[in-house]
Amino acid sequence: MPPDGSTKTPRTGRRPGESSTRESILEAARRQFAERGYVGATMRSIAKEAGVDAALVVHFFGTKANLLSEAVEWPFDPDVEMPKLLAGGKRHVGERIVALVVRTWDQEGARDPILTLVRAATIEPKAAEMLGDFLRKRLFAPLMERLDSDQPELRTTLAASQLVGLGLARHVLRVEPLASAKPAAVVDWYAPTLQRYLAGKLG
Amino acid sequence: MPPDGSTKTPRTGRRPGESSTRESILEAARRQFAERGYVGATMRSIAKEAGVDAALVVHFFGTKANLLSEAVEWPFDPDVEMPKLLAGGKRHVGERIVALVVRTWDQEGARDPILTLVRAATIEPKAAEMLGDFLRKRLFAPLMERLDSDQPELRTTLAASQLVGLGLARHVLRVEPLASAKPAAVVDWYAPTLQRYLAGKLG
Repeated sequence: MPPDGSTKTPRTGRRPGESSTRESILEAARRQFAERGYVGATMRSIAKEAGVDAALVVHFFGTKANLLSEAVEWPFDPDVEMPKLLAGGKRHVGERIVALVVRTWDQEGARDPILTLVRAATIEPKAAEMLGDFLRKRLFAPLMERLDSDQPELRTTLAASQLVGLGLARHVLRVEPLASAKPAAVVDWYAPTLQRYLAGKLG
Repeated sequence: MPPDGSTKTPRTGRRPGESSTRESILEAARRQFAERGYVGATMRSIAKEAGVDAALVVHFFGTKANLLSEAVEWPFDPDVEMPKLLAGGKRHVGERIVALVVRTWDQEGARDPILTLVRAATIEPKAAEMLGDFLRKRLFAPLMERLDSDQPELRTTLAASQLVGLGLARHVLRVEPLASAKPAAVVDWYAPTLQRYLAGKLG
């Protein structure tokens, strides 16, 4: 899942045509995970849509959890967004991270893979691990390092628990008035929480 | 789902034996929803475990979403807990509600039905509506009324988004150090957030 959305460089030794078959499977997987969810999409149904044998999907990707991890394209690139989160100074990091998350979740195309992952994470430990790894390693670890706050792992967890809860409430449970609120209002409501979790006094 | 866990009073006109059949189906449903999740448990598999025909399950409960709503037993009684949430005064409501939620989620038997519901809510709109209705009507509406805060519906949503996110992070995604933290520490970390959402300045 390279951030620019390019296809992966095939490993050496791969036969010609292999990488395009692989890519067809990934495309079918992305569509099916988004439409049917992690449980509804099966290795067999994905193979069928890609026009290949199910055994080939297993050969390339092993397990469904691994196929999910290869298929998900993160909707933003942490290396690009990270400097922006801190561009306003430490005092504005809470506001900035809520704005980033609301902007990302509010775009339907960007929201689908995250929703697929969050849904999968509630039932499949490997998907939960994968979601946790991305959030920790790619997003929060570099952020916490630059913020230089104490208890970085705890802060990561607290922040993630609120951001995932916000996404669920706004886009899955769709509770009002949150579901229809303007992004700027959502940022106002949640920014103080994230500011405290990331850089404030924890209690 | 009567708070004391008693079986329901059968409607008049029901044949003898009907209520015990109904109860067997509900017991099988509770077990299967907890073990297999909302997607994995089917009307057919629940009927089989209860030793009845699947058509009878449909006759009694209509849809799987409705069966879920009848089977879930809320792990605490809002009418009992509500006065306790306010017993320390308005300034302590954030701390008290986090303590209640942590205590409830920390008991495995009480956690299962909530997890089933939260998981079901991420894929099934009717389950989401049901979860939202319980939280809003039975828990937050009476609480907000007594607190007399402005924007009660918005505050309900904000609080629920954090409490659901906390439950997911601690018990489903099981991220550390939150997953193994002592209840009192969890209360310290989250109480200021809930206090602001329920009774503070929103932004």
